[in-house]
Amino acid sequence: MSNIPKCMKAGENTVIEAGAVIGKNVVIGHNTVILKGIKIGDDVEIGANCVLGIEPRQSGRMRKINKSNKDLVIGNGTKIGNTVSIYTNTVIGENVFIADHVSIRENVSIGKGTVIGRAAIIELNTVIGKNCTVQTLAYVTGDTILEDNVFIGPCVSMSNDKYMGAREYTLKGPVIKKGAKIGNNASLLPGITIGEGSIVGAGSVVTKDVSNNEVVAGVPARKIK
Amino acid sequence: MSNIPKCMKAGENTVIEAGAVIGKNVVIGHNTVILKGIKIGDDVEIGANCVLGIEPRQSGRMRKINKSNKDLVIGNGTKIGNTVSIYTNTVIGENVFIADHVSIRENVSIGKGTVIGRAAIIELNTVIGKNCTVQTLAYVTGDTILEDNVFIGPCVSMSNDKYMGAREYTLKGPVIKKGAKIGNNASLLPGITIGEGSIVGAGSVVTKDVSNNEVVAGVPARKIK
Amino acid sequence: MSNIPKCMKAGENTVIEAGAVIGKNVVIGHNTVILKGIKIGDDVEIGANCVLGIEPRQSGRMRKINKSNKDLVIGNGTKIGNTVSIYTNTVIGENVFIADHVSIRENVSIGKGTVIGRAAIIELNTVIGKNCTVQTLAYVTGDTILEDNVFIGPCVSMSNDKYMGAREYTLKGPVIKKGAKIGNNASLLPGITIGEGSIVGAGSVVTKDVSNNEVVAGVPARKIK
Repeated sequence: MSNIPKCMKAGENTVIEAGAVIGKNVVIGHNTVILKGIKIGDDVEIGANCVLGIEPRQSGRMRKINKSNKDLVIGNGTKIGNTVSIYTNTVIGENVFIADHVSIRENVSIGKGTVIGRAAIIELNTVIGKNCTVQTLAYVTGDTILEDNVFIGPCVSMSNDKYMGAREYTLKGPVIKKGAKIGNNASLLPGITIGEGSIVGAGSVVTKDVSNNEVVAGVPARKIK
Repeated sequence: MSNIPKCMKAGENTVIEAGAVIGKNVVIGHNTVILKGIKIGDDVEIGANCVLGIEPRQSGRMRKINKSNKDLVIGNGTKIGNTVSIYTNTVIGENVFIADHVSIRENVSIGKGTVIGRAAIIELNTVIGKNCTVQTLAYVTGDTILEDNVFIGPCVSMSNDKYMGAREYTLKGPVIKKGAKIGNNASLLPGITIGEGSIVGAGSVVTKDVSNNEVVAGVPARKIK
Repeated sequence: MSNIPKCMKAGENTVIEAGAVIGKNVVIGHNTVILKGIKIGDDVEIGANCVLGIEPRQSGRMRKINKSNKDLVIGNGTKIGNTVSIYTNTVIGENVFIADHVSIRENVSIGKGTVIGRAAIIELNTVIGKNCTVQTLAYVTGDTILEDNVFIGPCVSMSNDKYMGAREYTLKGPVIKKGAKIGNNASLLPGITIGEGSIVGAGSVVTKDVSNNEVVAGVPARKIK
């Protein structure tokens, strides 16, 4: 474990596999598991009972996963809570905050300064910009784009599969443009775009694209004054 | 621990209680806890930080739990992710895929080839058929039946208690027939039946039975063309 | 660790930091982490893989957190499941039941006899009364009040931020009065009051106050007969 500097502070029962690369002044909580495919920056804090650097697994009935040899990269100054799981081939920027019980899949990127709320889930192939807020228990599906400064309320739900497994279909999640805000427990359908600066009301079901700077609400969501 | 074959590969800090029965070529991740009431088949893979074989606990205000001495049984070739918890007296078929952060209660059965998405929750006394998909963060309540090839979208919510704790009532979750598909974040009320091959739109609230091969959507859900 | 009586039963790989105070006849599961800021009463049962006594962390983009030196206090006879995380400066009453995968923040109080369902999340500064039921995957936001005997259905979502991070605003969650019942997957907006004994239908979006003893449903929720 030559890649681990002496200034690291690790808890009890921490498992750090050979191959992990760990920066300066890193703090790792008790019982956390650091798997081999990981590069942790300086001044990163990680809570207890996490599993970081997970390799994708597959079942016969799931879409094929591209295995890569790329590491999980965690930027300087990022803070990760307790009981968090994160996969390989994902890049987390600097000064990101990831709360407890979060799960983040492979081939994801998360921009500088973004906050991911507790128990939120980020699926594979998703790009999240800078200074976004993804609130507690929100579900950001795979193949989704959140531009910078997006706000995703608590318990927001997204989908990327128009045919719910019934046909061959290129999965496509929502595209949420700069500064848009999605209210709590709203449902977003596959492939829709939410325009820059737009607002989606709590509990809305968004079935088609929303232009820039619009406010929509209801089931299905319609423009409101 | 005479029930553990030599070909098992266990991680660091794994706890395996005496009484656990473990098949051939099983892989168990770091810090995972295997309690005593468990029978694990051959070629099973289990991630890190899981707790498997939990005995039901009870509070005075919850309905009475039937304690049984039956084990948790995990079929050959099944894959279980990280930070998963599963109770005793539950039977998981062959080649099932259970993602990270899932929780499965006692007296549940899950058929061959089914996929349970990350952080989904399966409550007690529920029967799930073969080749079903239960997506991320879906909530499958207690006393529920999912027949074969059912698709439950992300964040779907179900209930089994019509009176929300107010009266004595035999709890009854939904019955979802073969091949039915439930869109993301839909809400299903207690005891309703969703017919074979039917589709429920995202964000719908289903308050009464849906016939076979119908498409319903809205709040409350109505038949659409 | 002079504060730990001999009658405690701790699992393997349990971490108990110096400073923790632990009552009589306490049972703690394998791989659980008990941090220093905690006072555990008598006859408390705690499952495996928990993290208890977490100190709040902060990112630059989040609201300022008042660090306190107050402990997490767990009342006599309370039962805590597996993979649970709870913060310091929170008081949990006697005979409370906290299911698996639950997360509870700092400055929360939970009254005697209340049941918190699996994977439910209770955010900071929230007060929950006696004999309440918070069902599975429910999200109780910060700055919320649940009076005694309240029922929160599965997957209920709440918000406390009217402007979704857009302006300075004193965060205020819902106030839910005695004996009110909220159906599964309902969405509650910031600062609304649900009157005593009122019922909110499943999947409803509650945008304004509900008087005592009313039944409301729909999007937006309206009084029904």
